[in-house]
Amino acid sequence: MTQQISIFDTTLRDGTQGEGISLSADDKIKIAQKLDALGVHYIEGGNPGSNSKDIEFFKRVKSLNLNAKITAFGSTRRKNSSAEQDSSLVRIVESGVPAATLVGKSWDFHVHTALQTTLEENLAMIYDSFAFLKRNDMEAIYDAEHFFDGYKHNPEYAIAALRSAQDAGADWIVLCDTNGGTLPNEIHEIVARVRAELSAPIGIHTHNDCELAVANTLAAVGAGATQVQGTINGYGERCGNANLCSIIPNLQIKMNYSCISSEQIAQLTNVARYISEIANVHMPVNQAYVGNAAFAHKGGIHVSAIMKDSKTYEHIAPELVGNKQRILVSELAGQSNIISKAQELGLDVNANNDKTKQIIDRIKDLEHQGYQFEGADASLELLLREAFGGETKEIFKLESFKMLVEKNAGQMVSEAIVKINVDGETVYTAAEGNGPVNALDNALRKALMQFYPNIMNIHLSDYKVRVIDENDATAAKVRVLIESTDFDNTWSTVGVSSNIIEASWEALVDSIRYALLNMAKVESQAIDTRERLGLVNH
Amino acid sequence: MTQQISIFDTTLRDGTQGEGISLSADDKIKIAQKLDALGVHYIEGGNPGSNSKDIEFFKRVKSLNLNAKITAFGSTRRKNSSAEQDSSLVRIVESGVPAATLVGKSWDFHVHTALQTTLEENLAMIYDSFAFLKRNDMEAIYDAEHFFDGYKHNPEYAIAALRSAQDAGADWIVLCDTNGGTLPNEIHEIVARVRAELSAPIGIHTHNDCELAVANTLAAVGAGATQVQGTINGYGERCGNANLCSIIPNLQIKMNYSCISSEQIAQLTNVARYISEIANVHMPVNQAYVGNAAFAHKGGIHVSAIMKDSKTYEHIAPELVGNKQRILVSELAGQSNIISKAQELGLDVNANNDKTKQIIDRIKDLEHQGYQFEGADASLELLLREAFGGETKEIFKLESFKMLVEKNAGQMVSEAIVKINVDGETVYTAAEGNGPVNALDNALRKALMQFYPNIMNIHLSDYKVRVIDENDATAAKVRVLIESTDFDNTWSTVGVSSNIIEASWEALVDSIRYALLNMAKVESQAIDTRERLGLVNH
Repeated sequence: MTQQISIFDTTLRDGTQGEGISLSADDKIKIAQKLDALGVHYIEGGNPGSNSKDIEFFKRVKSLNLNAKITAFGSTRRKNSSAEQDSSLVRIVESGVPAATLVGKSWDFHVHTALQTTLEENLAMIYDSFAFLKRNDMEAIYDAEHFFDGYKHNPEYAIAALRSAQDAGADWIVLCDTNGGTLPNEIHEIVARVRAELSAPIGIHTHNDCELAVANTLAAVGAGATQVQGTINGYGERCGNANLCSIIPNLQIKMNYSCISSEQIAQLTNVARYISEIANVHMPVNQAYVGNAAFAHKGGIHVSAIMKDSKTYEHIAPELVGNKQRILVSELAGQSNIISKAQELGLDVNANNDKTKQIIDRIKDLEHQGYQFEGADASLELLLREAFGGETKEIFKLESFKMLVEKNAGQMVSEAIVKINVDGETVYTAAEGNGPVNALDNALRKALMQFYPNIMNIHLSDYKVRVIDENDATAAKVRVLIESTDFDNTWSTVGVSSNIIEASWEALVDSIRYALLNMAKVESQAIDTRERLGLVNH
Repeated sequence: MTQQISIFDTTLRDGTQGEGISLSADDKIKIAQKLDALGVHYIEGGNPGSNSKDIEFFKRVKSLNLNAKITAFGSTRRKNSSAEQDSSLVRIVESGVPAATLVGKSWDFHVHTALQTTLEENLAMIYDSFAFLKRNDMEAIYDAEHFFDGYKHNPEYAIAALRSAQDAGADWIVLCDTNGGTLPNEIHEIVARVRAELSAPIGIHTHNDCELAVANTLAAVGAGATQVQGTINGYGERCGNANLCSIIPNLQIKMNYSCISSEQIAQLTNVARYISEIANVHMPVNQAYVGNAAFAHKGGIHVSAIMKDSKTYEHIAPELVGNKQRILVSELAGQSNIISKAQELGLDVNANNDKTKQIIDRIKDLEHQGYQFEGADASLELLLREAFGGETKEIFKLESFKMLVEKNAGQMVSEAIVKINVDGETVYTAAEGNGPVNALDNALRKALMQFYPNIMNIHLSDYKVRVIDENDATAAKVRVLIESTDFDNTWSTVGVSSNIIEASWEALVDSIRYALLNMAKVESQAIDTRERLGLVNH
C-alpha cells in the first residue's frame, strides 16, 4: 500500500509574501477553485482578521462548497492575555472555516528577541491557543516557526513547544524551516527524532533560501512527515516557499507516495500557468516539470536522439504533468531542429535542398538582428510556411501609417491613420485608442473588418517589450512580443526595431496574419468534415 | 582540515544550451574573466571544433593568462574509427588548452538507441579517446553521460564504462545525471558505490528537472565527489544545470568545505548579476543567495523582528555573498516598512503623525492603480521626500508634449515637441529620435540642458513594459519601469497609464528629477567637505 501524503497549499497566504505578488479577493477565489480541481487537501486562505480582502475571501469561498478544507491562518495568542480575549483568534473561529493554522515560536532566541517574553509564557501561549481552537471544534494545525533552528540551539525547548500544542489537542505538528537555511540531512535527522518523541502526525514547511526547499521536503517525508506545506510555483517571501509543482510529481511519480489522482496531476502544468497569470508573475521558462522549457530540446545531438526515442533525454513523459515536448530553433541547434519543427507543422521539407539552407540562413540572420523565435512560435511558423510552400496568402499590403500622441492640459489623445491595400483595393482609415499600439490595432482591424469579419474575435492577451542592446538606452533596438488569443488557441509573435511603434506594428501584423491563415484552415477542415459526413451537396 | 572541492564551470558550454541564451565570442571572454576573478578552478569554454564563435574564444582566451584552467569539450571518438582520425578530437588537442572534457555513454540503452553500436565498441571509444588525450599531455575529464540512469539499468556496464576511462588514464570521472531525474538518496548511494570501485577522483554533474540539482550535488559531495560541475544562475538545457551560485555558498558557508576564498564568495552576487546581464536573461528576484529578493522582507511582523535582530529572519548575513537586506514596501507590509524605508533615507519620520498616515494611504492608492515601488526605488524615494519634507525642488513643469511616428515607403520618422516651464521661463523645443520614447527623452533633455548641463551624463540603461490588466490587451494599463545610470549609480523609476507614451514620460520625468536632486546633493556635500577643510572663504 502506498502512503498517503496530505497537500497543504499556502499560495494564498505565504505565497502573497513574495516580492511583486498581490492578489485581490477575486483572484483568490479563482485560485482556490483551481487548487481544488487539482485536488490539494488544504487551502490556506489568509488571515481572517488582517485585511478586507481576506475577510471578503472567507465570506465568498464558503458558498463554493470546495472539496479542499479551507484553512484560516493566525498566531498563538498575545503574551500575558487569554485566547478568548485575542480578537484575531476569535475572528478565526468566527470565520466559519473547518481548520486553522496557528504559527508559534519554538526557538528560544525568538521568544526572547522577537516576542520579548519568557519561555514559560510562550508554552502557555501555544497551549491556550490550541485548546481554544479545539473547544471550538476546529481542526488545528501548529506551524512551529523556526523549528529546525530552534532545535539546533535548544532541542529540549523546541520539543517542549511542540508538546504544548500536542497536549492541547493539535491535529498536526508542522515543522517549519522558516529562514530556509537547513540542509536535507539535518531535516531528515531532526524529523526522525521528533517522530520518536511525539504521537501527533508531522508536517513539513520549508523555504528555498539554499535552493533546497524541495529536497528538504522530500527528506522530511522520507523521515515520516505526512503533510507537506508549499505554494504553487514556489511563491513566497525572499526565495520562496517549497514548490508544490515539483514536490507533487516527485512524491507521486518518482517516490510512489500518493498525493492526488493521476488525472489531477496531468493538470499540473495548466494550474501552474493559470496561477502565474492570475498572480501576474512571469513564469521562468526553465521551471521543473511545468515550465515551457522543461521538455524543450536545443542541442543538435540531443534533438536527433530525442527523435529516435524520447526517453533518451526526458526523465518522464511530459504528458504525465500536462506538459509537452518542444524542439527549439536556434543557431546552436543547426538544421535538424528547424527540420523537425517544419515536420511538426506537416510541411514538405528535406534536409538537403536549397530551400532548407536558405531558410536556416534567414533565421540565423534574423536572430542576429535580435529576433527570438523560441518565444514566438507563430512568427516562426509564418516564416517556415513561406519557405516550404504552405499557405501564405498575403492578407494585405501596408502603404503607410501615421501615429500621433498628444498631451495637453492633462488630456492624452492617441490617433492612428493606416493606409493598406487588400486584394488591389486601397483602404484608408483612422481610429483612436487608449494608447498608440491600441490605436494602431484598432485602425488596422477597422480596415480589415469588411474583408475578414472574424478578426473581431481575436484579442491581444500580452504585450512585452525588451531592450536588446541596453548600452543605447531608449535609442536601442527593442523586441516586442505579442501574445494573442481567440480563447481556444494562444499564439505569440515578435517584432524588432529601434522604434517601439514599428516593432509593435510588426508583431501585430504577424499575429493577424497567423490568425487569419489558421481561421481559413479551420474553416476548410470544417468543410472537409461536412463533406465526409455527406452534409454538403456537390 | 577542510576538504577542497574543485569548481568546474560550464556556463559557456552547457549553459548556452538554455532557452533564450546565446553568447558571442566577446560575451564569452567577458564571462571567462569574471569567472576567473570568482576563483572557479575550471572554465569549460565550448567545443573548439563546433563553430566559429568557440574557435575565436579559444584563440583569444589564451592571451588573458587566467588562473582557471580553460577546458575544451567534445565527445569520445566516432564509432568504428580511431581517435587520431577523429577531427573533433584533433581540434581539441590543437586548441592548446590544458584540459579537455569528453562526454561518453555509460547507459547501455543509449549505446544501442542513440549511438547505434555495440557495448564493446563504446568501451573502446572511451578507452581510445582518453588514451589519445593523455598521449597529448592533456588533463582529461570523463563526463559519463546518463550515468545514474545507466547504473540503475545495468550497473556492471555503467561501471565498465568508467573503468575504460580510468584505465586509459582519465584524471577525473564525472558522473552525470543528464536527464535530471535522479533523487538525492539515489545519488548518494550510487556515488558511494562508485567510489568503492574506482581509484580516480569523482566529479558530479546534475540537472534541475526535479528541482533537485543543488541537493543532488551536495549528496554526491557528501558521498565523496570532489569536483562539482555547474553553471552560474543554473543556466542550461530544459530546467537548467546545477546552480553554482547556490552550491558554492552551501558547500562553503554551511558545510565547511573549501571552494574559493571568502573575498571571492563575497563577489558572488555581483558575478551572478553581471553574467545575467551579459547573457541578457532576466534574473528571478527570488533566486537563492544572489537574487534581489533573497534578503527582502515584506511581512510587517517579519520586518519589525528584523529591525530588532537580522538573524531572526535571515539564514546568513547577506554580505557574505555580496547581497544586501531590503525592506519592501507594499500594502501587505503596513506602515512599519514604509517608516523603516524613510529612516533608511535619513528622513525625519514618526509613526504617529498625520503625514505618515497620508503617505501610506497615497502609496496604497498608487499600488491599487498599478504602480509597483518594489522595483522602483527612486520613484518611491521622491514620494517619501515630498511627504517628509526632504529636498523636492520642482525641476520643471510640463505644459504640453506632442509625439508623431510615421511610416511611409519603408521610412520611419519619430518626432517629439515639448513645452516646459523652468523657473518661470517657457522652453519650447523639438527633437527626433530612433523611436518615440527616445524622441521624447531627447526633446526633454534638450529643453533642460541650458539649466542643468549635467543631465547629459545620465543615460537610460533599461526599459521594461508590462501590461497590468491583460484582459484589456492593448487597451489595458501598462506599467513602464526605467532604469537609469550615471555610471556610478543606478536607479529605477515607474510610470503607469493606459498609454505607453504617457507611462514612459512619467518614468522618464521621475528619473531626471531623481538624478538632478541627487546631483544637487552630491555638489552640496562636496561644498560641505571643502568648508570643513577650510578651502572656502566666507
